[in-house]
Order: sequence, then C-alpha cells, then structure tokens
Amino acid sequence: MTSVGIIGATGYAGAELVRILTGHPHVNLTVLTSRQYAGTPFSEIYPCMLNVCTLTCEEFSMEETAAKADIFFMALPHQLPMHLAPGLLARGKKVIDLSADFRFSDPARYESCYQEHTAKELLQQSVYGLTEIYREEIRGADIVGNPGCYPTSILLPLIPLLNDGLIHRDTLIADAKSGVSGAGRTPALATHHCEVNESFKAYKVDGHRHNPEIDEVLTLQTGRDVHVVFVPHLVPMTRGMLSTIYAVPQKGISAEDVRQCLQQRYQDSPFVRILPNGRTPDTRHVNRTNFCDIGFHLDQKYNRLVLLSAIDNLVKGAAGQAVQNMNIMTGYAETAGLDAVPFPL
Amino acid sequence: MTSVGIIGATGYAGAELVRILTGHPHVNLTVLTSRQYAGTPFSEIYPCMLNVCTLTCEEFSMEETAAKADIFFMALPHQLPMHLAPGLLARGKKVIDLSADFRFSDPARYESCYQEHTAKELLQQSVYGLTEIYREEIRGADIVGNPGCYPTSILLPLIPLLNDGLIHRDTLIADAKSGVSGAGRTPALATHHCEVNESFKAYKVDGHRHNPEIDEVLTLQTGRDVHVVFVPHLVPMTRGMLSTIYAVPQKGISAEDVRQCLQQRYQDSPFVRILPNGRTPDTRHVNRTNFCDIGFHLDQKYNRLVLLSAIDNLVKGAAGQAVQNMNIMTGYAETAGLDAVPFPL
Amino acid sequence: MTSVGIIGATGYAGAELVRILTGHPHVNLTVLTSRQYAGTPFSEIYPCMLNVCTLTCEEFSMEETAAKADIFFMALPHQLPMHLAPGLLARGKKVIDLSADFRFSDPARYESCYQEHTAKELLQQSVYGLTEIYREEIRGADIVGNPGCYPTSILLPLIPLLNDGLIHRDTLIADAKSGVSGAGRTPALATHHCEVNESFKAYKVDGHRHNPEIDEVLTLQTGRDVHVVFVPHLVPMTRGMLSTIYAVPQKGISAEDVRQCLQQRYQDSPFVRILPNGRTPDTRHVNRTNFCDIGFHLDQKYNRLVLLSAIDNLVKGAAGQAVQNMNIMTGYAETAGLDAVPFPL
Amino acid sequence: MTSVGIIGATGYAGAELVRILTGHPHVNLTVLTSRQYAGTPFSEIYPCMLNVCTLTCEEFSMEETAAKADIFFMALPHQLPMHLAPGLLARGKKVIDLSADFRFSDPARYESCYQEHTAKELLQQSVYGLTEIYREEIRGADIVGNPGCYPTSILLPLIPLLNDGLIHRDTLIADAKSGVSGAGRTPALATHHCEVNESFKAYKVDGHRHNPEIDEVLTLQTGRDVHVVFVPHLVPMTRGMLSTIYAVPQKGISAEDVRQCLQQRYQDSPFVRILPNGRTPDTRHVNRTNFCDIGFHLDQKYNRLVLLSAIDNLVKGAAGQAVQNMNIMTGYAETAGLDAVPFPL
Repeated sequence: MTSVGIIGATGYAGAELVRILTGHPHVNLTVLTSRQYAGTPFSEIYPCMLNVCTLTCEEFSMEETAAKADIFFMALPHQLPMHLAPGLLARGKKVIDLSADFRFSDPARYESCYQEHTAKELLQQSVYGLTEIYREEIRGADIVGNPGCYPTSILLPLIPLLNDGLIHRDTLIADAKSGVSGAGRTPALATHHCEVNESFKAYKVDGHRHNPEIDEVLTLQTGRDVHVVFVPHLVPMTRGMLSTIYAVPQKGISAEDVRQCLQQRYQDSPFVRILPNGRTPDTRHVNRTNFCDIGFHLDQKYNRLVLLSAIDNLVKGAAGQAVQNMNIMTGYAETAGLDAVPFPL
Repeated sequence: MTSVGIIGATGYAGAELVRILTGHPHVNLTVLTSRQYAGTPFSEIYPCMLNVCTLTCEEFSMEETAAKADIFFMALPHQLPMHLAPGLLARGKKVIDLSADFRFSDPARYESCYQEHTAKELLQQSVYGLTEIYREEIRGADIVGNPGCYPTSILLPLIPLLNDGLIHRDTLIADAKSGVSGAGRTPALATHHCEVNESFKAYKVDGHRHNPEIDEVLTLQTGRDVHVVFVPHLVPMTRGMLSTIYAVPQKGISAEDVRQCLQQRYQDSPFVRILPNGRTPDTRHVNRTNFCDIGFHLDQKYNRLVLLSAIDNLVKGAAGQAVQNMNIMTGYAETAGLDAVPFPL
Repeated sequence: MTSVGIIGATGYAGAELVRILTGHPHVNLTVLTSRQYAGTPFSEIYPCMLNVCTLTCEEFSMEETAAKADIFFMALPHQLPMHLAPGLLARGKKVIDLSADFRFSDPARYESCYQEHTAKELLQQSVYGLTEIYREEIRGADIVGNPGCYPTSILLPLIPLLNDGLIHRDTLIADAKSGVSGAGRTPALATHHCEVNESFKAYKVDGHRHNPEIDEVLTLQTGRDVHVVFVPHLVPMTRGMLSTIYAVPQKGISAEDVRQCLQQRYQDSPFVRILPNGRTPDTRHVNRTNFCDIGFHLDQKYNRLVLLSAIDNLVKGAAGQAVQNMNIMTGYAETAGLDAVPFPL
Repeated sequence: MTSVGIIGATGYAGAELVRILTGHPHVNLTVLTSRQYAGTPFSEIYPCMLNVCTLTCEEFSMEETAAKADIFFMALPHQLPMHLAPGLLARGKKVIDLSADFRFSDPARYESCYQEHTAKELLQQSVYGLTEIYREEIRGADIVGNPGCYPTSILLPLIPLLNDGLIHRDTLIADAKSGVSGAGRTPALATHHCEVNESFKAYKVDGHRHNPEIDEVLTLQTGRDVHVVFVPHLVPMTRGMLSTIYAVPQKGISAEDVRQCLQQRYQDSPFVRILPNGRTPDTRHVNRTNFCDIGFHLDQKYNRLVLLSAIDNLVKGAAGQAVQNMNIMTGYAETAGLDAVPFPL
C-alpha cells in the first residue's frame, strides 16, 4: 500500500483522482487539499461521496501535507505547481502534476504560452507522462508532467505512424472536440448550461496552449520541427474527447500497413484499442474508462489518411493517465485501479 | 465462484448486468443469450466492451443454456420469463427475473395489467426482490422477481414510515421522473433524440403498470388496501430516477421522528443513504451506483411530508438490485461487485 | 407604433423581450439599458442578433431613458424595480415589471419572502399580469406586475376549477419542473453544464418565493385562504416548464365537467390550449411559443384529478406574457408579435 | 398570394416547411401529403401545431394533389421525387425538391452514390438551389434541387475564395458536425436518445453521399476537378451544423483579403453573415434562422486558412433555403417568411 495525497482535490480532475484513488487496491488516500474548501468534508462538495469518502479538505502546508503521503498528485491551475514541486521533491516525495508546468522540455516554449517558469531546473528531470510512449522513463521518474487531454488524444495515434515514417510530418491537421468538463468547475458564462446546450463551436482558433505541447513532443519524437494545425471545439456533453486527424500518407502505404504499425506499437498497452475494420471511435465507448480507442480510414485514391481517436478527457485525458503513471512509478500493475468494466450507456 | 448466465443480455438492463457481473469478484459469467443477436460477439453490440467481454451471444436452449450456469438472470420482456423459469428451476437453477412476471403475489393483479399468467404456481414461491425489505426471504429463495424501477424508488422511502405509522396511508401521491434508458433499447419515436431533447412530459397518466405493483406491496406491508396516486414523467437524460412523494403525517410527528424511522430501518443497509438535513437527492449523485438516496421535508404548518428519493434506474432500479439479490441468495457480501466509487460527474 | 424601452435587457428574460419586441409589428424598440454592458452593442452580447438588432446598451438614467419611450419593460432583479417605477409613472410612462416587486397586493406577504417594499403605495395600483385572468384590469393599468413562471403554469389550470367549485381548495399539490434558463444568465455552479447535465432534482423544497405568490392569487380568487404545496424541480434542458397538479374533485364531477369548465373559461384566450382527450402536455410542444397547454386525467375510482400544464418559461412564463399584457394595455391585438408558428422540433 | 403544397410533409424537413410556409405572408398552404399519415390531421403528428395548422395529411395523387397548388415542395427520400417531378412539371407546376434527385448535373455522379436516375432529362433543366451562388438561375427555374445541409455549409465559405483564387483547390478538408435532426425522424438505434447522449463520433468516414455533391459544384465553379476530404460527425444536439474547413492560401494572401472577398461576394445576401474579427460561428447563434455565419482564421506563419461556418441544418440546410428559393422564383422578397428575429437561447 502506498499513501497518496491530492493537492487541489475539488476541481473536476482532482475529484476524478479522488474517485480512482479511493477505489485503488494498493493506495491509501490520506490527504486532500483545497484552498477554497479547507475544512469542508469532501462529501459535502461532492455529495455522491456520502459514506464513501470520509476525508475533509485541508489547507496545503508544505510541512504538514508532505508528511502525510509518499506520492502527491497536483490538480491545480498552472503556475501553482511549479512553486510546490521543489519542496515536495526535496522531502523525497514523488509528484505527478496534472498542470502544464512540467510537461515541457523547453522552458521558452512553456513561457511563450503560459508565463515565466520559476522551476526551470526541474524541466529536464520531469518526464512527460504520456504513458504508452514514455513508459520506461516514467518508471524511474520522481516527477511527471501529466499530458493535456488534447495532446493525449492526438499524440497516441500520430507518434507510431510518424516514428515508422508512414505519414508526412508537415501537413498534419487535428480537428479536436471536447466535452465541457475540460473547461473545469469554476462557473463561467462559457460553461453555463443554457449557453452550451444546443451549441457547437470552435474556440481559441487563433491558438490553444495545447498546440505547443503537441508540437514539442512530435518534434522530439521525429527530431525535426513539426507543427500540427489544431482547432479545438466544444461539444454539448460532459465527458469525452474525439480527435479527427488528417495526414498525408507516404507513397505506397496501405491500410494494412497503418493497422500493423498501430497494433504493433500498442500490443502491450492495455488501454489503447485499435478498432477493427469498419469501426470508428465514439466517445461513449470510452466513457469513464482509461481507454484510448483509435480508428482510421485510408483513402488511397486521394492519398489521405484520417485518424480518429476517442478518450474520456477526465480519465485517459487527466486523472486516469495520472494514476496509470503512478502505477508505473510504483511498480504496480499498470491497470490497477483503472480496470472497471465499461458502462454500456 | 458462481457460474452465472444472462438470458436476454442485449437490452439496456441486460447489458448493465453484463457490466456488473463481468466485474463481480465471485462470479464467472458463462453465457449470454439473445434472439436478435445470436452468434454476434457481445462487444460488437456494445463496442465499449472490446477486449473486456469476450462472450458471444447464443440462442437460448433450455438444455444447453441451463447446463452452463447455476444462477440465471432474465432480462426479457414480460411474458417470456414465465415460460422459461419452470424449466430452469426444475434443473436446480436459481433465477432472478427482471421482468414483472414474478413480482406479484396475486395473479389477478398481474393479469389486470399484463396478460394471462401461465406459471401462477410460482408466484407464491417467488420472492419480491426489494432487497432492503425482503432480505431474509430472498436469502432462501430460488426465484426472485426483481422490482420495477419506479416501485423501488417509491417503496423504499414509504415502507418504513407506513410500517411505523408515521403517515396516513390513504393520501399518498408519487410524482416520479425517469431518464430515457427506462424505455429500453428498441428504437421508437418516443425515444428518438430529437423528440426527447428539450422535452419534459408526463406519460401513461391514466395508468402505468408499476402502479399495481406499488399498491400490492404496500397493501401487503400494511395489511390494508393502499393506493398510491402515481404519475411518471420522462426526463431528457439517459440514467436516473427521482420520485417526489407527498404524504400526510400523523398528528404530532416531527422531522426528527421521520429521520429516526428511516435511519433505524436502513442502518444495516449499505445502499440506502438518508441524506443530512438540508440536502435533497439528485440523480447525479447516485448515477451509476446502487445507492438509493432519500431526503425529506416536513411542513408542520401545513401538515405535509415531502419525501424525495433518487436512484439510477438501471442499477438500483434494475441490474444492480438484481445482483444485490444474487449476493444475498449466494451468501456473498451484499455489496460484492456493486461497491465502485461513485463518479463526481 | 408605440415606442418601447427595456430596462435590464441583457438577462435571459430581457433578451427574450428584445427578440419579441424587435419583431413586433406595432413597436419601435428605442432603448435598452444594462449596468453591466453599458456601451456595448446588444449584438455583441447576443451574437445571434448581428445585423438584426443594432441597439447599444445604455446606463439607465431616469431623465434620459424615460424620454425615449412610452412603455417600459423592467427585467431586473427584484428590489430594483420598486425604485424606478415611481419615477417612470410620474413621467406618464406605462410600466410592465417582470420582477416580483409589483405582483403582490399584500405588502406583508411580499416582505415575508423578499425584503422591505419601498413603494407599497403602488401595490394597489399595480395589476397582476396573468393575462387570461386579469385581462380587463390590465386594459386600464399603468403598471403591471408580470407573474412568475411557476405561478403562471399553476394558476391557469387551477383558477377556473376553483372558481367553478369543481375541486377542493385545501388539498392542492403542485409538482413543478423547470428548464435551466429560469435560473438566469449569471454563471453559478448550479447552472454549470456539467452539474445540470444528467441531473434531476428538487430544489428549495423548504420554500420557494413563488409559493406565496400562488397562494395570494388563489386566496383572492376564492375569497378564502388557500395554500398550495409546491415543489419545484430542475430539468436538464434550457426552456420549458411542466406543472403536475394534484387536486381532489368535488363529488360527482366528471371528466366532461372539467373539460367544459376549462374550455369555457379560455374560449376567447388564444394562448391557452385545452388538449384533446388522451393528450398530455409536453414542454416541447409549447417551446418558444406563448401557449399554455393544459391536459388532465380524472381518476374517479380514487377521486383524484391530475392537471398538467406546459409553458415556455421565458415566453408565457416571462417575456411573452409581458408583451401580451402590453398588447392589452395599448389596445393592439392580444397576439401581436406573439403569433409565430411553433417549431416542430 | 401563391398556393403551395408539400409532398412528404411529416418528416423533419417537411414539418419545418409546414412551419415556415404557414407563417409566410404571401403563401397559402393548401395541401400536405404523407403516405404514412394519410387521413391524420397534421396537428396530431406535431401537437405543437394544435389550433395553428388545420390541414390533414393526404395520400399523394398526381391529378388531385397537383390541382391544389402552383408550387410544390418535395421532402421525400431520394428516388421518389424523380418519379413525381415530371408529372408536376407537365402540369405547369414549379417544383423545389429537397432530396438529392435534382442536385446533380452529371447523372453518372448521382448514380455512383445513389441509384439509377429515371428522369435524367430533367438534370440539365434543374437548378442547384444554393441561393447565394445560383440566384439568377433560380429566378427562372421551374425545378430546383435544394442543396444538402453539409454542402450548403461547406460551399458558401469556399466558393468565393476559390473563385477569386485566394486558396489552393487541391488540399481542401472539411470536418463537419451535425445535430441529430439531420438523420431524420424515422426511429433507429443511431438516433435513440441513449445512444446519442454523451456521444460524439464521426460516421460514414469511408464516403458520405454529400461528398460527390460538394465536389461537383466546386468542379463546376472552378472548371477543374476538385475533391474535398470530407468527414461528417454527429453532435448530441437536435439542430445545427458547423463545418471547419482547412485550406492552403495562395502566397501573400492576408486576412483582410479573405474578409474582403467574402464580404464583397455576400454583400447583397441577407442571410450570410461574415463575422467580425475575433468572433467564431456557433450553431446556437444561427439556431432556427436561415443565416449562414462565416468566420475564419488565417495563420500566416504556417500558411493555413481555417474557415468556419454555422447553419441550422433544418433551415438554411433544408426548409429555409427551399423557401428562400421559392421567394426568388416567385419574385417575392428573398427574406419573406424567413426574417423572424433569432432566439437569444
């Protein structure tokens, strides 16, 4: 058993961590922190947890909080984690951060779309937590920067095909669609039910912060500059993310080549499912699971490959992948706490 | 480990049984039957199950199917189960039927709202599977008639108060609201997304089949004729049921009396949660769980008690309660396979 | 043509007024006020209005604003209108207020659930704007207190039956359900899409401010104290309200009596539709219209009448009825600006 | 006044035609036909129409039906209209067909994705009803093939830019998203509320019938073969369509060039709105209107143009554009019957 704490437990990603870790067979969830709700039982904030989670939220305090667990998840707005991580690491704790603060290798890239980074020295130490791609590095990591939801859904289908040279790297387009929970729990007009309901739209068309994250990883993976044209959209639903990715295949590539590349790359990855021929991913089929479903269509006449991937933005796109990373870091089975049977509806 | 089969596995209640039983720690799910989908892998019908459930649907055959398991769940339209149950019982199998066929003690009441009953002799043997009320009888039962979703949500709050004489039995009103999954999986105009979306309405105002079921149980519980005025409504959501019940309290009853009655009755029932003062049930808080959340408001000035209960119609209202009953019948922990941590969203 | 202004134009009821009045054949919409958005074109706040409404929101100023129109709608939070109405009336303007400030005859009743009333002298002058019931009084009114949405949906079916003595007045229950737009446009956790979606719940079970409003009108109509047990619920949809009302009929009353009473009362009311036998109201069927659809079921065996009424909470429950009242006050056809053909979906 | 009939009035597009034409100031709607509902009052099929539309559906009969109106809309499944149009035209009627039967110039292209065409001779006579592009041809047409919803949303932004040579014609991608009403009213698992709710997915990734329609129009417009990579998706909402279109701009093109091209082309088209800088289309902003909102983002660094367009699939994507075409054909104002003020919600 590992004692685990969550710093910032009351946002949607934090609460999803509470859910998974409360049910995790090898975890003892010992501390939840929240500035806004310090002193409030977690089950008052999330009444579904009545009789299930009996923890009360606490104010974060480096000495006291750090003493209560061995591994910490941080589900805070970016810029806060970079101030807390050094202290936690100095006390011998392992850290999995769900913000953007430790996702980048290149501080300049981070600073171009967030703000100044005050713990740059940790960026080389930190491992990007896209589990299926960086599993070995994660195994020995003390600090993991858990990927964004959009990057997760876009990188998993793209990396194997780019690595194996099956597609061109300079014409990539990712048209991505997310449920509303990705916008977080803080009330805003943009997440008001009446504004979201019966609405579909693109947003941040002139630049979303997940774009440099995607670009950096693909650039590192290919050794050459890669830019993905990326347009995020908001879907009137709570959970789920679908990315439709357009790529130009290299000459002579067949659908079977694409399938083999993906299947081979993910044959030992229990959470990536390459769908059978004729099936396309649906966010409902991965709802509340840690799966990433991948499908594709190769149009040989017009030489275009359409890749489709579906995840639950709060699970594989956030809390689930974070726990998957913890499992790797601690040596537990990769699927521990994440293997609930999917819901038919 | 108990080997279990599901007869009629591809409707929504059947599929929810597949989900729960696939993840049940003491169950070996061995056979799924379906007329419509015989020969089709279950994961083709419910693609969420890819790599998770590897069973293929079979045509039901008494000899072959019965040989494959010790306990059978039937998730079929009413009228079919009454033809299958005798054969299964004769072969020493235990049966939990989710239709109305074995819910009634009085065949005339059944026949007044369904059709002729051809296995009347089993009605005395069959136990009504409202677990918290009939737990002891269920323990020794060979055949259980699993309650309807509306009756479950209405009977659980009412029975303790009627048993203890805290409310009048002749002025009961239940205004109940259900998500769309209660209408089943068969496509129909009434469940077409465009007809349901942005729609709220009552239906079957002149008589719903769950009304006699509710009335019979309350009549048996109180020893006197009871009729509940019952109006069901359809909510534009997939899962969830809320019942708002209006009762006239006996003179001098206090809110504390109501609370104590409910808490005492359900103190050893892990799936019934009597909410703290000031909280009211929300279907979202019991979503995908086997909980029944109960709240109430006593208006002493106007002498009116409002009871509120929330369940997930597919879990506590169908498949979850059925598995809860199986746990009782087999001597497993009542919560086995049903104790997943609730989702915050 | 009448020149009309809207004070508080950017909330949902205000914006719905903008919509209706922009399309009204006899209205010249001349001024929109908003504290929050003064100086902002209305079509920036509601982009649907691009090229359609060219007005820019202004700060309210008694002298300047009053000079711009002859009739003013106020769509402000309660407590503000009582400070503005006297000045507008003193300048010879007519006022239709959508808040609760001018709905009550009895200031004590108002103050019991809102706050001190500083314009009590206007309460006798003000007419309750339930058009079908107070049409004649509205005709000559200078100031109208437009009804709440819940009261509109509950009073229209009840008043004729109470007036004609067809039902008992002391056992009335109204179980009401509203779409989310009733909660207004200000962002809050309670209206966050992720909190509303797949959620159904009651709220303010211990007392909603529309209850005294309902009670006062029924008390005035019957000449005796009436209290309705009233429980509001939130439906995961944007628009619409359904009320299910339970009443005890007087002895010997038939369904035909109920139908005749309702039809006779509303035969000259174009916006009240008494549904044919066997039909029940659906919020979708009155969506975006000024209709109030009324249906009922009389259970003679158990002596219970179930009344059902559906409105669009923003139209008949707010802006539509306000314009209907303006039409009466100005002598235009009652349906002017409100007779768009309903949407099939 | 023009007398108008609708053949196939009870599907969603047909019912939307009933709505618009019932409210049209210059139209006398005289006949509705339906095979399934012959003899049934339209207001029983669509109860929103009670007291509003008093027509009863009839069986189609060439002699009798044709005699009742001068202009006919056909809202039937493809393959039926080609059998009816010749008879109607022979009787001097004008025809606006909402199916695919008269959209194509090239019968081979039609037959490649539908079935044999039995009225090929009409294809040259028929005009493609994309109003803003073919307004002059429509003016004199006897028969119009009303465009598909996807083609409408994709062609309107693309054609001006292709005509003016601002973008390359050989790298076009359209990622399109539609509400569920586009799938029609016939119940099916794919439109079951529980299957659609909380689901987002692509469909017909290997070829949708609107793709050849798009390609043919662009080929005719440019005089050279054009193929658009087109992937449709299903959004869990009733109405609305958003298309995100990716194009490679010609060298040196500025955002201002794009804006001027679009604005100039559509300056006399009241239903096309080129959004101001910084705004992106939202289906909610065109909901229930005949508008097509167009926005764009030009990324000069990476030389990519993203075009966004939003329509209501049942209005500008079907019935509204059909009426717009009728207005052109009859010489009425183009906006007649289509100029209702948009709903803020």
